[in-house]
Amino acid sequence: MAQSTTKRYCIVGAGAGGLSCARHAADTGAHVTVFEQTASVGGTWVYTDETGHDRYGLPVHSSMYRNLRTNIPKQTMGYWDSELVSDRTYPGQEEVLSWLEGYAEQHRLSRWIKFEHQVIRIVPLFGEGASRRWEVIVRDLRENRCETLQFDFVMVCNGHYSCPKVPEYPGRDAFVGIQIHSHDYRCADRFEDQDVLLVGAGYSASDIAIATAKVARSLTVSHHDPNKVNFGNLPTLVTKPTISKITPTGVEFVDGTAITCSVIIYCTGYRFTYPFLSVDCGITVEDNHVTPLYKHVININHPSMALIGVPFYCCPTQMMDLQARFCIQYFTGSRLLPSRSDMLADTEADLEERKRRGLPKKWMHKLVDDMQFKYYEDLARTAGIVPLAPTVEKMFTECMRRRMLDVQNYRDDEFEVVGEN
Amino acid sequence: MAQSTTKRYCIVGAGAGGLSCARHAADTGAHVTVFEQTASVGGTWVYTDETGHDRYGLPVHSSMYRNLRTNIPKQTMGYWDSELVSDRTYPGQEEVLSWLEGYAEQHRLSRWIKFEHQVIRIVPLFGEGASRRWEVIVRDLRENRCETLQFDFVMVCNGHYSCPKVPEYPGRDAFVGIQIHSHDYRCADRFEDQDVLLVGAGYSASDIAIATAKVARSLTVSHHDPNKVNFGNLPTLVTKPTISKITPTGVEFVDGTAITCSVIIYCTGYRFTYPFLSVDCGITVEDNHVTPLYKHVININHPSMALIGVPFYCCPTQMMDLQARFCIQYFTGSRLLPSRSDMLADTEADLEERKRRGLPKKWMHKLVDDMQFKYYEDLARTAGIVPLAPTVEKMFTECMRRRMLDVQNYRDDEFEVVGEN
Repeated sequence: MAQSTTKRYCIVGAGAGGLSCARHAADTGAHVTVFEQTASVGGTWVYTDETGHDRYGLPVHSSMYRNLRTNIPKQTMGYWDSELVSDRTYPGQEEVLSWLEGYAEQHRLSRWIKFEHQVIRIVPLFGEGASRRWEVIVRDLRENRCETLQFDFVMVCNGHYSCPKVPEYPGRDAFVGIQIHSHDYRCADRFEDQDVLLVGAGYSASDIAIATAKVARSLTVSHHDPNKVNFGNLPTLVTKPTISKITPTGVEFVDGTAITCSVIIYCTGYRFTYPFLSVDCGITVEDNHVTPLYKHVININHPSMALIGVPFYCCPTQMMDLQARFCIQYFTGSRLLPSRSDMLADTEADLEERKRRGLPKKWMHKLVDDMQFKYYEDLARTAGIVPLAPTVEKMFTECMRRRMLDVQNYRDDEFEVVGEN
Repeated sequence: MAQSTTKRYCIVGAGAGGLSCARHAADTGAHVTVFEQTASVGGTWVYTDETGHDRYGLPVHSSMYRNLRTNIPKQTMGYWDSELVSDRTYPGQEEVLSWLEGYAEQHRLSRWIKFEHQVIRIVPLFGEGASRRWEVIVRDLRENRCETLQFDFVMVCNGHYSCPKVPEYPGRDAFVGIQIHSHDYRCADRFEDQDVLLVGAGYSASDIAIATAKVARSLTVSHHDPNKVNFGNLPTLVTKPTISKITPTGVEFVDGTAITCSVIIYCTGYRFTYPFLSVDCGITVEDNHVTPLYKHVININHPSMALIGVPFYCCPTQMMDLQARFCIQYFTGSRLLPSRSDMLADTEADLEERKRRGLPKKWMHKLVDDMQFKYYEDLARTAGIVPLAPTVEKMFTECMRRRMLDVQNYRDDEFEVVGEN
């Protein structure tokens, strides 16, 4: 293919999203560059003892804790044409990482990846007619040198489990004990014989509560709806409502009760951040709602940019692989995108449906109830690409049902796929 | 003042806005850093023969053309406490630049300015409690080294006469003659004996038309409303409606007529760009509408950031000086900002008024009719700062009236202020 017609892809991040994008982009004959700020592939799936900042002064990316096992079955992970193989239905972190490394090797992706390169800024090049391109400023972290490059397409795969969201309770700064966000949690050892307060009731909250209950002197969980706290049968667990105030040695709750504690663990979720996207890209992020995105993935203001992995409460690797294949259909011109106004109308209809269901702003990308598998079907049908196997939905649904019943032990289940459906 | 309480200001750009901000910020005892990507102060007011890209590969900032004279009287320029002195009511570019240089010298501003430093990216530091700060990545252009710094306040003064907006007419790329935007216009000499088409009817359009009419073989002006073209009595001038198509050697218009031309000059305005502002700053720019800004200047999502100089069709230096003094009142804590919801409501009311007046989206910051001086009064009253002198409004109004009557000669008027009002 002649130099002038070879398209250039910039992919931000070599995690589960970036690897899939790199593979599918490379399959089109394009020139691909993946910028990865760490020294290895895997993104979220890389475990490191490190917390805080790395040796380049960048915030540590991964929130992975020791002994993490997946919270959905292996059959709902993997990519469309790459199975995640494990002896267990719920594989451990190392197995997921090995699978990703194997995938990178199989598709010879390392030839495209620039490790220890941080994407600093992405701006559209205005005023260059229909063939609008992207200017990307990248910092080689080892040399602390900046380079300015141009690309035809940008696929943003920076993950959204990196920037902790911590509620601003009064008195927080005066607390004399340990306060950490689950982002910085690695294992429960340091909480031995401590009085621990855990804030939140999501996936990391339950994992961390179960591990901490084994070693802590006491464990209290605060959540705005204490009935929603489902951590199984933890003997030491006390549940409390929302925090009203933090004191130097404890916490007061909105029901007037108080506890003494030496550790507060915030399992309060993450903030979607895109530090490297200039406002000139036409993307707005407000309370984890990213707009305007066609099908939650293509930047309507500059449709040669995709933001991969924005929807959550899903089967992330399968979804990102589907999104990558979806975008490539349009980037290569195999399919033509609808008009700008049609894309906006499609997005608006999805938003309206979410508002109708009473979802708050921060859940405008959450794939609740039937939305998840409808979304996957919609992506596949719209772009004419291979859909997910029907087993994925069945496995996911069964896993959620089992988790609800027995959050402590559901990962010991073993599922097996029998036949095609 | 102790190190820990000295506030740090980051000011982007050492033009008319940045110099005023630097002076007022420094007056509070703060530590000020002004990042200026060129080697001199003055921003828009610096004339350079250079067009395209500078020696560092950056787009040339200034749109200044040779022999430009101000389009408003000197009494409406200057700052609140710094007069722009000139023998003429409408000073030339060199006089405005000298005044700015003198102001910088008077207030010893060069000690704060880092020349040939490009601000690459600004992001808020999340999760650091109430004392939220800014991370700024700056490139020393001479060394091509990046540095990461932290600041308490950011004042963005990058101007908005740098990124040309060029309409995308069909056939544009096949035109064999010269096409330039007024951003790259320096003088009319090169249009001698050419058949020139000029697109637009604003300030630069009239200046460039008057200069070009003296040397060109023919001069045609295209504007969607030909009745609005007021360039005085130019003998060679022909007016045409909107372009429908560009051919290799000429242009067709929506009324079915066509001309042959060898030069097209686009006086079609500028795009507001903030390449260095990350989407994480919570600022959205859509069709030159910047949101959410309290009083068109303070970032409501992160009120320790100001975007100076956004409103247009105004007395820019006076306005920016007023905005700088306005912001400093809040940054120092002399005044407290209203609540977030009150700021949003205030902004919404202004928007509603603009929509009621039928203004298009791209004019959401245009100070039309009575809006300009009401805006200045509002800023002064709200923050309790010294308002503009009443003469400014009178001078401005008289200038606009005279310009309408005689666009070719209004700059030869001489005004004199007699008494206080």
